Amino acid sequence: MDINFALKKYQGKMEHTYTLGAFPTIELLKHKPECVYKVLLHPDMDSQGQLDLISSLCQKHQIALERNKKEIEKIRDKDNCLAVGVLKKYEESLQDAQGHIVLVHPSDMGNMGTIIRTAIGFGINDIAVIEPAVDLFHPKVIRASMGALFQLRFHSYASFEDYQKEFCDRVFYPFMLKGATDLQKLEKTSNRYSLIFGNEATGLKDEFATYGQSVFIRHLPTIDSLNLSMAVGIALYEFTK
Amino acid sequence: MDINFALKKYQGKMEHTYTLGAFPTIELLKHKPECVYKVLLHPDMDSQGQLDLISSLCQKHQIALERNKKEIEKIRDKDNCLAVGVLKKYEESLQDAQGHIVLVHPSDMGNMGTIIRTAIGFGINDIAVIEPAVDLFHPKVIRASMGALFQLRFHSYASFEDYQKEFCDRVFYPFMLKGATDLQKLEKTSNRYSLIFGNEATGLKDEFATYGQSVFIRHLPTIDSLNLSMAVGIALYEFTK
Repeated sequence: MDINFALKKYQGKMEHTYTLGAFPTIELLKHKPECVYKVLLHPDMDSQGQLDLISSLCQKHQIALERNKKEIEKIRDKDNCLAVGVLKKYEESLQDAQGHIVLVHPSDMGNMGTIIRTAIGFGINDIAVIEPAVDLFHPKVIRASMGALFQLRFHSYASFEDYQKEFCDRVFYPFMLKGATDLQKLEKTSNRYSLIFGNEATGLKDEFATYGQSVFIRHLPTIDSLNLSMAVGIALYEFTK
Repeated sequence: MDINFALKKYQGKMEHTYTLGAFPTIELLKHKPECVYKVLLHPDMDSQGQLDLISSLCQKHQIALERNKKEIEKIRDKDNCLAVGVLKKYEESLQDAQGHIVLVHPSDMGNMGTIIRTAIGFGINDIAVIEPAVDLFHPKVIRASMGALFQLRFHSYASFEDYQKEFCDRVFYPFMLKGATDLQKLEKTSNRYSLIFGNEATGLKDEFATYGQSVFIRHLPTIDSLNLSMAVGIALYEFTK
């Protein structure tokens, strides 16, 4: 793929994004080579193993590999970032036959990356995001996911109703502090389930309790709630046992 | 308690630290009032509920409460921080009768805060930290824990051997990628257990497998490992069922 524009620091409105660092760049080249415009290397890059892997993946997929100190230094946010992948943003349809995670208005980039990585680790590869939400293509999300984003199918919806219309015939589990069923006692009845989580600060609105079998994760009242990524991780662990 | 020094931005060598923000300051006043030198309020603070709660807790424990724009602006790292607690650092002994988490060289402040908060939520109140390690009193750790640090007993050890000497008669569970037993199949034999986790980047050294019953958390090879706080959270969920 050709790229005919000057590269600038990432902004959400761009139609391309970046992998900042060798690790997520390698994950990108392994899983989504068809989306890569080019890979930039900084002259200070001295990890021979990573260099060789990046070179051979670029060669295999006929992707341009450039030594370009100036462009990298313009794009990166940390001095230790010595490899950058430039890629076209994409979106994919979720698979109805698989388990889904549905995140309603997630707002924290670090949490988002951790959730993506954990989901991939537990074999859940489909995430729906209800807007407004954090930008999954933000380089900080990609880095926090350690490049696991490129193994994920994800799709944004303007509202939960839009998601529901497309995937009406599934078992919905809204996770709520006031959920009706203890996660530990839940009997999974289908592999076509949607685990639904609210925003970090506000959780899900009460009405979600009517959308399916609401679930809570038991914890002491010493804390108000579990961290969002922690709640998702524990739910995934239990659901994929 | 009196304080007779000028306040500066936090540094690890100081004998005092700060809660940055109303939420962790309230948690501090609730759980460790005896360690508080004073509380500072910014004139822009306008949440009446938080103001009332801070005032009444300070009054109850005879803690000085100052409106001090200049000092807060010197100490804080974010403009939306409008309340600051100033407290003396402390350390407590771990209780042998309780479950412990042992963190060997943890290095990420955000992870540390999430681990503390999750531990408190699951009723594990004792954490041992093996140095070198992140500073638990760093205001960023306190904030990431949302003040849950003040419900925790924690103690630092120069080496794992030092911890082992003090707590020799317990069941040790080192969590390792190459662990012998699947967490899902583990039979807990005692409430006096120590869940041991390595550093974010390197995990535990192989020798830890000989220190107890090594455990792994099953995940797909699509990712190298779970995030450290995620691994701790899932282990806590399973152990405190």
